[in-house]
Amino acid sequence: MAETNPAQLNAALANPRADMEALDSLERTLFSLGYAMGEIGSLGPVIDPPKATEERAEALATLQQASVEALCDPAVGALLDRLEQEPELVGKTRMSQIKILKRDRAALVDVPAEEQAEFSRLTVEANDVWRRAKPANDWESFAPYLDRIVAALKSMAAKKDAEKDPYDVWLNEYEWGTDRAFYDRFFSQVKDCVVPLLADCMASRHKPGHSCVDGNFDEERQWKLARDLMSLEGLDEGALWIGRTEHPFTGGPSRSFVIIASHVYQDNLLSNVFSMLHEGGHALYEQNVDPEYRYTSLRGGTSMGMHEAQSRFFENLVGRSEAFAAPLLQRLVKRFPGQLRNVTPHLLYLAENCAEPGLVRTEADELTYPLHILVRYEIEQLLFSGEAAAADVPRLWAQKYREYLGVSVPDNTRGALQDTHWSDGSFGYFPTYALGSAYGTQLKAAMVAGGMDFDGVCASGDLAPIREWLRDRIWRWGRSKDSGELIEAACGEPFSPVYYTDYLTEKFSTLYRL
Amino acid sequence: MAETNPAQLNAALANPRADMEALDSLERTLFSLGYAMGEIGSLGPVIDPPKATEERAEALATLQQASVEALCDPAVGALLDRLEQEPELVGKTRMSQIKILKRDRAALVDVPAEEQAEFSRLTVEANDVWRRAKPANDWESFAPYLDRIVAALKSMAAKKDAEKDPYDVWLNEYEWGTDRAFYDRFFSQVKDCVVPLLADCMASRHKPGHSCVDGNFDEERQWKLARDLMSLEGLDEGALWIGRTEHPFTGGPSRSFVIIASHVYQDNLLSNVFSMLHEGGHALYEQNVDPEYRYTSLRGGTSMGMHEAQSRFFENLVGRSEAFAAPLLQRLVKRFPGQLRNVTPHLLYLAENCAEPGLVRTEADELTYPLHILVRYEIEQLLFSGEAAAADVPRLWAQKYREYLGVSVPDNTRGALQDTHWSDGSFGYFPTYALGSAYGTQLKAAMVAGGMDFDGVCASGDLAPIREWLRDRIWRWGRSKDSGELIEAACGEPFSPVYYTDYLTEKFSTLYRL
Repeated sequence: MAETNPAQLNAALANPRADMEALDSLERTLFSLGYAMGEIGSLGPVIDPPKATEERAEALATLQQASVEALCDPAVGALLDRLEQEPELVGKTRMSQIKILKRDRAALVDVPAEEQAEFSRLTVEANDVWRRAKPANDWESFAPYLDRIVAALKSMAAKKDAEKDPYDVWLNEYEWGTDRAFYDRFFSQVKDCVVPLLADCMASRHKPGHSCVDGNFDEERQWKLARDLMSLEGLDEGALWIGRTEHPFTGGPSRSFVIIASHVYQDNLLSNVFSMLHEGGHALYEQNVDPEYRYTSLRGGTSMGMHEAQSRFFENLVGRSEAFAAPLLQRLVKRFPGQLRNVTPHLLYLAENCAEPGLVRTEADELTYPLHILVRYEIEQLLFSGEAAAADVPRLWAQKYREYLGVSVPDNTRGALQDTHWSDGSFGYFPTYALGSAYGTQLKAAMVAGGMDFDGVCASGDLAPIREWLRDRIWRWGRSKDSGELIEAACGEPFSPVYYTDYLTEKFSTLYRL
Repeated sequence: MAETNPAQLNAALANPRADMEALDSLERTLFSLGYAMGEIGSLGPVIDPPKATEERAEALATLQQASVEALCDPAVGALLDRLEQEPELVGKTRMSQIKILKRDRAALVDVPAEEQAEFSRLTVEANDVWRRAKPANDWESFAPYLDRIVAALKSMAAKKDAEKDPYDVWLNEYEWGTDRAFYDRFFSQVKDCVVPLLADCMASRHKPGHSCVDGNFDEERQWKLARDLMSLEGLDEGALWIGRTEHPFTGGPSRSFVIIASHVYQDNLLSNVFSMLHEGGHALYEQNVDPEYRYTSLRGGTSMGMHEAQSRFFENLVGRSEAFAAPLLQRLVKRFPGQLRNVTPHLLYLAENCAEPGLVRTEADELTYPLHILVRYEIEQLLFSGEAAAADVPRLWAQKYREYLGVSVPDNTRGALQDTHWSDGSFGYFPTYALGSAYGTQLKAAMVAGGMDFDGVCASGDLAPIREWLRDRIWRWGRSKDSGELIEAACGEPFSPVYYTDYLTEKFSTLYRL
């Protein structure tokens, strides 16, 4: 590709305008490869026929390699350095692009290509082993891969930044500006709040129940409901495609073509409701990034944590609020008038908010969810520090689930083998799930402090004021600002977990009449 | 991308093994970009939300540019030249790849990038103007674009081959080895046969009718029928995706992910049947190219004409044959038992084969179809030779439609503005449509001469012997052999239009009792 041609880039030396053209050209290349990978990767599990797998994998690997090579070309490093010296000429948007491109490049450039390829092969194999090990409750077959993955991640982290703790390197890559010290403070406050709160809830004589929404709900009607919910949430349906898959996700090639894939279960109406509201939150973020950024590296959400903040905001802070129960119930009744005629908004609210310590993270309620994450965070730290090896994980897992959630882990299938993330090499990613929930509560507090009648907005069923608030302060900025900056600008203070613990305490104390 | 890096390629000088690796790497790059364009481009009109258009166009343009740049890199020219000198080391498959890569490269490399970009902009604009002009019967607004397109195509053709007639250059690009002399002979034989044959049919007192299949047919049932037909035709459903669109087409990223998009009309059951059989023929070709070629430039069909030969083979030679009417009717009755209970295979056969001179190419029957193509071929020649300009086209169109088809053209909407091809800059492409039909009849004659009981195979509903014959002799070769070679090897003689004219004469003389 032209923009990675060293001759062309060298010719641009001392010519800032040619440099800017080279930058724009690089961005178009990265955009087009990202667009292709976004479409091919997102649609793969949704529409591809079964035999497509092998050729799709080959195409994706080659496109990914082309993208890495375009960014890691030495001439690009020099180009970005030169342009950074010309902030006035370059302008604010391109300066942000340069910041992000340098960061993306730094995450790739110091690890030799062979080591990256070796790691990629390792995780493909590990993922395959994990897929068989999980249903077979076979920790032993997976354990050697986990040890090798941790060792490889530590080796790569050392090449990225030899001075930094390796786990900190990966935490920072998933959520810019975070490290163990940050998450230790965060999780310690969460633990101190949620562990006793959950115990009190479980001891309460007043427990909400969900029997009012139990039953069998026609699947095609549930799909119509899913569309109703996207409309209620305020998604741009002219830039949205909804497909069907087992594990819900949001993806797609661009802000104008966001893909939500989800499932419906005949015997679980609320699973569909909250999957869609959750994925819709991700989709709102993607659709509302400033269109000026659409062909640049600033497109898309700024971090995993901030993305999860949006999805859990609409799933929980809006979706599972008492105020929103009325407009939500109206949509449910429209599609299932006979089955739900005796449900009131208050009964629906109670059914949405049954806290129950369980074994499986993806089935966890709002209160117990962060404890599932806490377990993973602590075990990741122990593996990275060398205090534990893969062989110790099942024991640690059982011990921490008993301590924090009060449950006994009967097997690894529902224990340390339940998630795909470690087999994919994603260490340092789990904590962003809990952090996102906390971001959301601080954003909600800032809305209310700024004068928004949050409950009134939810009750009205017109969420436009919430969307506009988030669009202005979070969504439109894409990757041009980091989570920390966004939170501070939106809330007038740095991130603080107290909003999260206050929110959980107030909500669940009331629900369980503590 | 690494493989277009001149430094790397220069380092490979005098090192044939490194050259082969560079070739393989180039092929992977072209495969992955082609895969992406195939998926994005094919799914665009089928599933993309309305707002996706602009970003999709940008991504496609950039991916296309990357593909052209990868192939046109001067180092690639030298690489291919060096490898061509080592046929024994390189082997047969790579030698075929080199032949095709050189040909693809030659089609691009001599036209300056700016001129190509300029032409691309011109056709985007022209297509836009055409889209408005067609329903408005407004030839005047489109005419200047047509003149500019012809001028641009002549200029580009001169750069590709200054010695050759410009129209010959484009004919040859769409169908390797053809030129005006070839098509003049072909169309002259077609005209001499079909024009009087059609007149005799129209004068006959025995005309088949289609009233037995008239009626309203539920659309969802028609979609189920469409799948039945794909199964009857013998497509690999593990490598097929069927979608819905206004203008049927076959596309997709790879042989393991072939996309058919089609339409159904409630009041026209046969439209669905023959659209699906037609597109299924294209899809069979793509699915059955030798898997050894899947990551190379040899993947896919060899030419437009040979592709059309496969689609029209299954649509007409199989699909509209009297022998196939019984198994076909069985599928129709399965989905529409009440409505079709009085239809016999013979009545169905008659309904499928009503010849009727009409105005619109895409609605033409098997007999009149080549006459529509003939009109376009003759007008394209006049525009290229300068004997006519765009302003003359409506008059020429009306004159030729009257002469060949005996119909009066009431407006340009159903006249010279009906097709999109000219506005896209596709001159020299139309003739392949008629040529493909003729290829198919020669292939069928060779099957019969080789001892196949063609009618028996069709009547049995198990088309495996036909598929195996075509797979062995046509499909599996992908682009490694040209149409001319394939026909000669399959039929034991070069292409001859006599099989086509004999076929049409026999079929329609019998149908119309001439």
